Amino acid sequence: MRASMKIPARKQIGVIGAGVCGSEARALAEAVGREVAKIGAVLLCGGLGGVMEAAAYGAKQDGGITLGILPGTLREEANLWIDIAVVSGMGHARNALIAQSSDALIAVNGEYGTLSEIALGLKMAKPVVVLEPGWKIEGAHRAKSPEEAVELAFSLIGEERNKIT
Amino acid sequence: MRASMKIPARKQIGVIGAGVCGSEARALAEAVGREVAKIGAVLLCGGLGGVMEAAAYGAKQDGGITLGILPGTLREEANLWIDIAVVSGMGHARNALIAQSSDALIAVNGEYGTLSEIALGLKMAKPVVVLEPGWKIEGAHRAKSPEEAVELAFSLIGEERNKIT
Amino acid sequence: MRASMKIPARKQIGVIGAGVCGSEARALAEAVGREVAKIGAVLLCGGLGGVMEAAAYGAKQDGGITLGILPGTLREEANLWIDIAVVSGMGHARNALIAQSSDALIAVNGEYGTLSEIALGLKMAKPVVVLEPGWKIEGAHRAKSPEEAVELAFSLIGEERNKIT
Amino acid sequence: MRASMKIPARKQIGVIGAGVCGSEARALAEAVGREVAKIGAVLLCGGLGGVMEAAAYGAKQDGGITLGILPGTLREEANLWIDIAVVSGMGHARNALIAQSSDALIAVNGEYGTLSEIALGLKMAKPVVVLEPGWKIEGAHRAKSPEEAVELAFSLIGEERNKIT
Repeated sequence: MRASMKIPARKQIGVIGAGVCGSEARALAEAVGREVAKIGAVLLCGGLGGVMEAAAYGAKQDGGITLGILPGTLREEANLWIDIAVVSGMGHARNALIAQSSDALIAVNGEYGTLSEIALGLKMAKPVVVLEPGWKIEGAHRAKSPEEAVELAFSLIGEERNKIT
Repeated sequence: MRASMKIPARKQIGVIGAGVCGSEARALAEAVGREVAKIGAVLLCGGLGGVMEAAAYGAKQDGGITLGILPGTLREEANLWIDIAVVSGMGHARNALIAQSSDALIAVNGEYGTLSEIALGLKMAKPVVVLEPGWKIEGAHRAKSPEEAVELAFSLIGEERNKIT
Repeated sequence: MRASMKIPARKQIGVIGAGVCGSEARALAEAVGREVAKIGAVLLCGGLGGVMEAAAYGAKQDGGITLGILPGTLREEANLWIDIAVVSGMGHARNALIAQSSDALIAVNGEYGTLSEIALGLKMAKPVVVLEPGWKIEGAHRAKSPEEAVELAFSLIGEERNKIT
Repeated sequence: MRASMKIPARKQIGVIGAGVCGSEARALAEAVGREVAKIGAVLLCGGLGGVMEAAAYGAKQDGGITLGILPGTLREEANLWIDIAVVSGMGHARNALIAQSSDALIAVNGEYGTLSEIALGLKMAKPVVVLEPGWKIEGAHRAKSPEEAVELAFSLIGEERNKIT
């Protein structure tokens, strides 16, 4: 096959956060999604509402590609801005797939589900950036703005893994 | 959010088959991939070699989008033609995700892994088309050419589910 | 730790089949469950009704231990004869866990879900015994009675894997 | 079937913690395992070394039953004290199964993997007890001794879920 035609795969940046959120978190998530699209990465999320929907919406405003890994069994549960849906049917166990499939994770807001994804990401040696305020977990990086979060996440890809091995 | 800007989600067609295969199966899978891209659907597969690689390659030749749901923990295991990778780390259990995430499935060649995907697809009331020769399973449709397989799969989307409920 | 106190782990035999079944299949499954208990193996199943319930019931009549790997998120969905429940919340993807956790599989009756488990078991090089009538799949063994099925399954443990490696 | 013969299912208590740990954590985990067995609950864990092994060992010293939900594909990876093994082949995604299958969780020591299980347990509205010192997470209870941890965990079963619904 003509491997010469192949363009390197895009990075995949996971945006994690609550499925229901206020307008402030929504605005932050949308801005994160925009930045992810601007740097040419795929926006990966859990595919549902709240932070996930706002991030996907933001990415689509800048021509990005969005991937949603859904917990349920119906594609119809995906928010309107998901281009490609993985219908896992696995419930919360799909959080591990979000972490494993992301080259870096950015947490916006979020509760226990998000915490589990942060922990799984760190366990898998992925760069994890928490947009302030948010969970304070040793090993996770913190950022003060969507721009800083995406820039930091992107710059750390590959770094964390190297530290470990 | 401006829902009016939203384009309906593309259908996702799963192509399943052996990870190692001969040139004949490879040619068939490539043609299936091309047809999937031509009708504007996303090519979904297991992301590895053989039939999966040939189908993804075919889809990329016609400007399609490819999604690979990998069994392992490393994105690097994806074949060169996978645009978006889900790194499931779930081994064979990922076969259920391939079936659940596909609007229709097309089997090219394949052994026990493929058979499990055919069975899971039928269990989930998805249209399943087997490109001849291949597994003969009651409930799965058969097609004699890649063109017929993709046309049939696409036309059956939504139909099977309706029969059941 | 005093490893000398350790008794070798019991074999785990998976009984697979339809969640709704007639009295004939039920009687066969119950007899399979009894035999599994008699040889001292753990009865593993999907934890729901039909063949799964009958097999678990049979095992408990002979003092066996039963493990159910449930598809849903509630332990209450387990049938009455399940001693230990794994609440997977993974839907059909749990079929892979049933196959992977069984030292051998016995199929009683069953439809597409059972077929997927047979295929996954064969893919994982597990001995698979189909109690007649039932799916005819190359590589799966056939037995004419519950006693023959359990005896055959038990005798093949370890054999299949050796053939492959 | 004679439902009158049925004994109510045992509670399942998950003990989570690091796969490699020092002698202090090991002693605590062993004591937790003993207490779980004494109250007649099944000891559920990830089936590997460290805290998981010590807890299973403790449970077996008091005649308990132990269930290990392994991340890998080989039963041989289970520690010596696991009676019943679920060979998930799902990697870190199996953490969700540990949380979902436990009526209550007790954390002994542990790092990111344990944190993910605490978070998943809280997300699923399970009682989570952290044996001090350990992760401090809002919503998780804390205990100062193995006896207190098991007593507290057991007493909270059913309570947390009621608070939520």
